[in-house]
Amino acid sequence: MRSPAEATPGLVYVPDLQSAGATVTLSAPESHYVGRVCRARAGDRVTATDGRGRIANLRIAGVGARVSARVEVVDERERARRAWVLGGAPEGRRADWLVEKLAELGVERWQPLECERAGWGHQAGRAARWRRIAIAAMKQSRAAFLLEIADPLPLAQALRQLPTGATRWLARRDGAALPGAPVSGLSVAAVGPAAGFVSDEERAMVAEGFVPVRLAESRLRAETAALAWAAWWAGGAGQPSA
Amino acid sequence: MRSPAEATPGLVYVPDLQSAGATVTLSAPESHYVGRVCRARAGDRVTATDGRGRIANLRIAGVGARVSARVEVVDERERARRAWVLGGAPEGRRADWLVEKLAELGVERWQPLECERAGWGHQAGRAARWRRIAIAAMKQSRAAFLLEIADPLPLAQALRQLPTGATRWLARRDGAALPGAPVSGLSVAAVGPAAGFVSDEERAMVAEGFVPVRLAESRLRAETAALAWAAWWAGGAGQPSA
Repeated sequence: MRSPAEATPGLVYVPDLQSAGATVTLSAPESHYVGRVCRARAGDRVTATDGRGRIANLRIAGVGARVSARVEVVDERERARRAWVLGGAPEGRRADWLVEKLAELGVERWQPLECERAGWGHQAGRAARWRRIAIAAMKQSRAAFLLEIADPLPLAQALRQLPTGATRWLARRDGAALPGAPVSGLSVAAVGPAAGFVSDEERAMVAEGFVPVRLAESRLRAETAALAWAAWWAGGAGQPSA
Repeated sequence: MRSPAEATPGLVYVPDLQSAGATVTLSAPESHYVGRVCRARAGDRVTATDGRGRIANLRIAGVGARVSARVEVVDERERARRAWVLGGAPEGRRADWLVEKLAELGVERWQPLECERAGWGHQAGRAARWRRIAIAAMKQSRAAFLLEIADPLPLAQALRQLPTGATRWLARRDGAALPGAPVSGLSVAAVGPAAGFVSDEERAMVAEGFVPVRLAESRLRAETAALAWAAWWAGGAGQPSA
């Protein structure tokens, strides 16, 4: 007999989740997790998300090298509030945990910025590593949305890609006090690299409607500032739904 | 000739900082930093803090195995707002970066909690490692206060040690929406371990005036919840002083 823990897989990531009635094949790591770690068998149910708002109940059809499953019910969710974080490079590998925390807090997009005082350079495997971290955080949070991870862009280019109408915030030690967090729409934060933005960069952002805000009394590291902003945003989620 | 960067040490930690006129001896690591890394010489000035609110200008008297310096001016600061975080054990070594982030955000005290579902166990060197992390974060933030790190305590005992009059918050997924952060006084947060508090623990806290609050829409890891609360608190610092 299997213990209940073995029989209850957590949220499974299925990027190509289809409509009810379809059969899907889980990826190799998810198949391993469901079939070997959780020891699920044909007939068992698992919950899956496509990372784009869909949550589905799956009924396992077959367990082998790849697990196949039938989509039973699909529920589609929309984001009522969205957040993007544009950030310069922090020191060392500190961006790894930043990606994890942004994903947990429900940020929609992480846009690394190539800045005057720091670039992201080329690091083999970084994009794949960040994606694995973001997927793990989504599953951990039982969330229906996967953090989008953009390739690093020069600031000017990143600014051009911002949708109009988004509220825009610039993390700055001498900025204004934070207001209440927005309860809807798209909010965008820009956070400098470890050594900070240069004045020209800040001017360009202020010209594009970014409001300088102060996140704490003390000087924050780059990744802490990004995280503090995301936590402020996440705290504006409004009344609990559960 | 020395470059300007070599001649300008950052904030130095001197726990036994005395009154103006006194001579202090820097610790071995701070002596190494000031004398070897920054190549400061007799006559140079450095800024020091005792981690308890005092910031002083020091004039270096002698540079050797230990650096000695004369205290010129001492400025005493007080915390207008204070925050304590009581927390159960997160997974693995995640508490290490939590300590760093709480220190950066200006939290006064970190109180690890022994909880029903998770204890802190005995880990050789953990207290010393946390202290090193907190000191580094204080220096990095150019702050005058060092995060106090308490030894792990059972929840009941930690609750008995709370000052009366503190506002108290309990991180809970189905809690109320966060209000505006308090701008003065002592605020205390309680965050469960990775597996969460048990009902009895939550009841005990609610009986002691803890208000359940929701920090984000999604499920947060233990250390992310603690961090999100601290960021919310830090964001209430009010109007910038600079």
